[in-house]
Amino acid sequence: MGGAILTGLLTEILIPNGVSDYLIEEEEGLNDHNVVVKCAEIQSAISEGATSFLFTEYQYVGIFMVAFAVLIFLFLGSVEGFSTKAQPCTYSKDKYCKPALANAGFSTISFLLGATTSLVSGFLGMKIATFANARTTLEARKGVGKAFITAFRSGAVMGFLLAANGLLVLYIAINLFKLYYGDDWEGLFESITGYGLGGSSMALFGRVGGGIYTKAADVGADLVGKVERNIPEDDPRNPAVIADNVGDTVGDIAGMGSDLFGSYAESSCAALVVASISSFGVNHEFTVMCYPLLVSSMGIIVCLVTTLFATDFFEIKSVKEIEAALKKQLIVSTALMTVGIAIISWIALPSTFTIFSFGDQKQVKNWLLFFCVAIGLWAGLVIGFVTEYYASNAYSPVQDVADSCRTGAATNVIFGLALGYKSVIIPIFAIAVSIFVSFSLAAMYGIAVAALGMLSTIATGLAIDAYGPISDNAGGIAEMAGMSHRIRERTDAAGNTTAAIGKGFAIGSAALVSLALFGAFVSRAAISTVMFVLTPKVFIGLIVGAMLPYWFSAMTMKSVGSAALKMVEEV
Amino acid sequence: MGGAILTGLLTEILIPNGVSDYLIEEEEGLNDHNVVVKCAEIQSAISEGATSFLFTEYQYVGIFMVAFAVLIFLFLGSVEGFSTKAQPCTYSKDKYCKPALANAGFSTISFLLGATTSLVSGFLGMKIATFANARTTLEARKGVGKAFITAFRSGAVMGFLLAANGLLVLYIAINLFKLYYGDDWEGLFESITGYGLGGSSMALFGRVGGGIYTKAADVGADLVGKVERNIPEDDPRNPAVIADNVGDTVGDIAGMGSDLFGSYAESSCAALVVASISSFGVNHEFTVMCYPLLVSSMGIIVCLVTTLFATDFFEIKSVKEIEAALKKQLIVSTALMTVGIAIISWIALPSTFTIFSFGDQKQVKNWLLFFCVAIGLWAGLVIGFVTEYYASNAYSPVQDVADSCRTGAATNVIFGLALGYKSVIIPIFAIAVSIFVSFSLAAMYGIAVAALGMLSTIATGLAIDAYGPISDNAGGIAEMAGMSHRIRERTDAAGNTTAAIGKGFAIGSAALVSLALFGAFVSRAAISTVMFVLTPKVFIGLIVGAMLPYWFSAMTMKSVGSAALKMVEEV
Repeated sequence: MGGAILTGLLTEILIPNGVSDYLIEEEEGLNDHNVVVKCAEIQSAISEGATSFLFTEYQYVGIFMVAFAVLIFLFLGSVEGFSTKAQPCTYSKDKYCKPALANAGFSTISFLLGATTSLVSGFLGMKIATFANARTTLEARKGVGKAFITAFRSGAVMGFLLAANGLLVLYIAINLFKLYYGDDWEGLFESITGYGLGGSSMALFGRVGGGIYTKAADVGADLVGKVERNIPEDDPRNPAVIADNVGDTVGDIAGMGSDLFGSYAESSCAALVVASISSFGVNHEFTVMCYPLLVSSMGIIVCLVTTLFATDFFEIKSVKEIEAALKKQLIVSTALMTVGIAIISWIALPSTFTIFSFGDQKQVKNWLLFFCVAIGLWAGLVIGFVTEYYASNAYSPVQDVADSCRTGAATNVIFGLALGYKSVIIPIFAIAVSIFVSFSLAAMYGIAVAALGMLSTIATGLAIDAYGPISDNAGGIAEMAGMSHRIRERTDAAGNTTAAIGKGFAIGSAALVSLALFGAFVSRAAISTVMFVLTPKVFIGLIVGAMLPYWFSAMTMKSVGSAALKMVEEV
Repeated sequence: MGGAILTGLLTEILIPNGVSDYLIEEEEGLNDHNVVVKCAEIQSAISEGATSFLFTEYQYVGIFMVAFAVLIFLFLGSVEGFSTKAQPCTYSKDKYCKPALANAGFSTISFLLGATTSLVSGFLGMKIATFANARTTLEARKGVGKAFITAFRSGAVMGFLLAANGLLVLYIAINLFKLYYGDDWEGLFESITGYGLGGSSMALFGRVGGGIYTKAADVGADLVGKVERNIPEDDPRNPAVIADNVGDTVGDIAGMGSDLFGSYAESSCAALVVASISSFGVNHEFTVMCYPLLVSSMGIIVCLVTTLFATDFFEIKSVKEIEAALKKQLIVSTALMTVGIAIISWIALPSTFTIFSFGDQKQVKNWLLFFCVAIGLWAGLVIGFVTEYYASNAYSPVQDVADSCRTGAATNVIFGLALGYKSVIIPIFAIAVSIFVSFSLAAMYGIAVAALGMLSTIATGLAIDAYGPISDNAGGIAEMAGMSHRIRERTDAAGNTTAAIGKGFAIGSAALVSLALFGAFVSRAAISTVMFVLTPKVFIGLIVGAMLPYWFSAMTMKSVGSAALKMVEEV
């Protein structure tokens, strides 16, 4: 007995950290077939729930999309009274452009294409995620490294699927539409914008519908389990737990996917529209005009290489390494992509070209456009890091909030809300700087490609994001299948943090995209006088000003929280 | 025994509501001298705490004000290199205006005047409120009517003090400055704007400093009492309770007072500056130029009459009537003030005059100005009513939130936050409509007087607002002095609701005032080109747009809350 304790003490003192980690990582319960059957059962329950939720959602989406498509067709078609005759172009009266009716038709088609692509990508992502859940749990029996690889690879599959599908359908649509439009770039890219609108409309449903469902299921399951019955999270006795797992899948995977897809499609379309009225369009340089698409495709290649860093070049040995590995994904993809953009900009762009800028033409050199894309890309990295800092339990903000729980829910809510408000400060400045720099270098086109830059590593971003709910659910399955606590721990790390990083990307790029879209509208409509709000200085003032109340609220709320905390401690 | 029950039943069935209320309102404990001594002790503890808090606050305020005053003097004085010579006026080169150094000096003086007036008003308000606390408690022994009158009258004293002080000091300052400036209206009213700035600077400290203290003390006291020790609110065993009472006094009385004073002074100054460059200034019509001050003085008279409705014309017989009586104050003061504005506009204003409007001159009739003030006034009423609806426990929103507590803190927080977000929707539209109408009728001057209209019944607003903390603290004193639960109930009604109404006024008028100030700046600096953001349509778009995310968040949060609630109930 005494000898065993002594051996234990000696082992703990003598064996270095890495080796003792290895000892913990022993395989367990590999031969227990019952566990596998149970996991499969739970997985199919989650899959069934998610599928039925999405099908219900898609029924409403379908009705909305058809109605909206009819509206688009009627509004755009009525511009020239549904005439089928070619009309003189608005901007060069000596040329004939395609009739508005054609634009209406093609816009409606691309709108439906965008919505369908987003829908299919989201659905397939959900399917992959539910297949991956139980597999991750089973792999976790072999060690944390195996579980990580399974979860991350599944996330990556979802990311690549979405990025590649989005790009492929867009490219095919452009080429097919070109058969009809020929050299009428303005008409061509005007109808292509429907693609972005379709993606965004789908995102609205996916994000809000899925988001409400996932949060409601999460809160409901926690309340039933922790508050009412006093049973631990993900306990099999709590029937709301499956709903929680379904929610994670439809909200944070399908929903986040359609959200990022929407931003991605919108920024591509905005950049294409602005490009079409620049010198690329005038000189009929189709390849150069497709620069935004080239950036996205380079992004897919870069993300492919980056993924190898997580799954093949290094091995995860302990749970603590997971968050660092995911963070490394962000850094590696950004660094590689910077090189990628440089190559693309050097090869594909002419050394000098002119860009439409509020009625004027602006001379731009190709390396300036490189900086525009790069600043968006790096701003995305900053947003990712700040989000991670504020959302991860490895740093002081979350620890402070946890600490404030000592005195009950009130101080916890105050601190948590203050923390949330505070977390927007640096991202807003990152976005403000990107807007200022990219506009100064290449006007509205600069902003559009900066948004694309932020989204160019979307595949890696989605892989990181999807890792969260997949491993979170794997943990839940481990608990429900009655596996040991150790296995649950191997899967349940960093889940919520990575989901937060995904949200940061989605919102940051949405801010840039909205400005780029507004810019595309102004450029296309050739409005040159009423551009006051669009001036980057004013727009930066607007977004920074909108952020200030949150900063101020965060400071005052934090003061209230700490003062109350001290008071309670003193009394 | 059986007979007593039967009599009780008969009494309950037979005696109508009013009479049974009267029976409850019996006098109790009037001859107990110990209670009086105890109340006096608690009152002096609160008074001491509040005084020492305010003195500490004023030390910091003093340092800030002196430093800021020096800055103002240096910045304004350096405009013409501290020259003491009269300079040609900027807007009519053939006239000579007072040197910038004089403007700097007078601006600094009026800045300090504004800050001091706000400080003194806040301090006296606090003194009145602490004196009224225990008196309300003691009066509550005689019945709810007496307690209401004591608390409301004290609030009214504070309201009139602040409104009258503000107006008096401003009027005296204008007349003294006029001795030097003569007919140089632009210089005169430019230096007077310091008054508004002083008031606002003081408001910053009063509101934020006092606000943080009051909320921290409130949360701290509740946590110590309810969560840690499981003793009821305001229990004498909890030492944090006195801090809570001090907080109510310095935050919701002195702080709210300086906040409303700031808006009041700012809107008067903004209106005066715009008036000075209109035809009033050109024609040297001093009385007409003082129209904003006339509106405020009419407001004081109207509020005086209104107060009689609460304290003398009707009598409060039960606790339930209190909220209705306070609401009646809002309605009566608004209705009377509408008549008052009509009289003022008809007597004091010329039938037609011209107003500066972004470089142009706009022809305005006197009855149009009446509508500008009136729409601000009525928008204030709408804001007050909506705030009351969302903050009072008599209506469904608060009841829904209370209902959501059944399933714990999580759904409660979600519902509460959603409710708060939702409560801004109608006020924002009320403000948007006021801006649009008043700008259409009388340009920037219209917006400035609309803000004044909203604040014209400030004395009644402050009386209602101060009623809250006074009666709240009276309830606390009753509890601490060991008086019966019935007495506590007589004082503790409607407290939080009225404080919320005050906040609604302060924020609504602040939005109008900020626009009016911006307008005054643009008018004074004669900027006519870059006015895009100031166009009411754009500004309305901005504030309504800024509100939309809250609307949307409220809807989604409410869905999450209700879905979680249903889920918990089902499981």
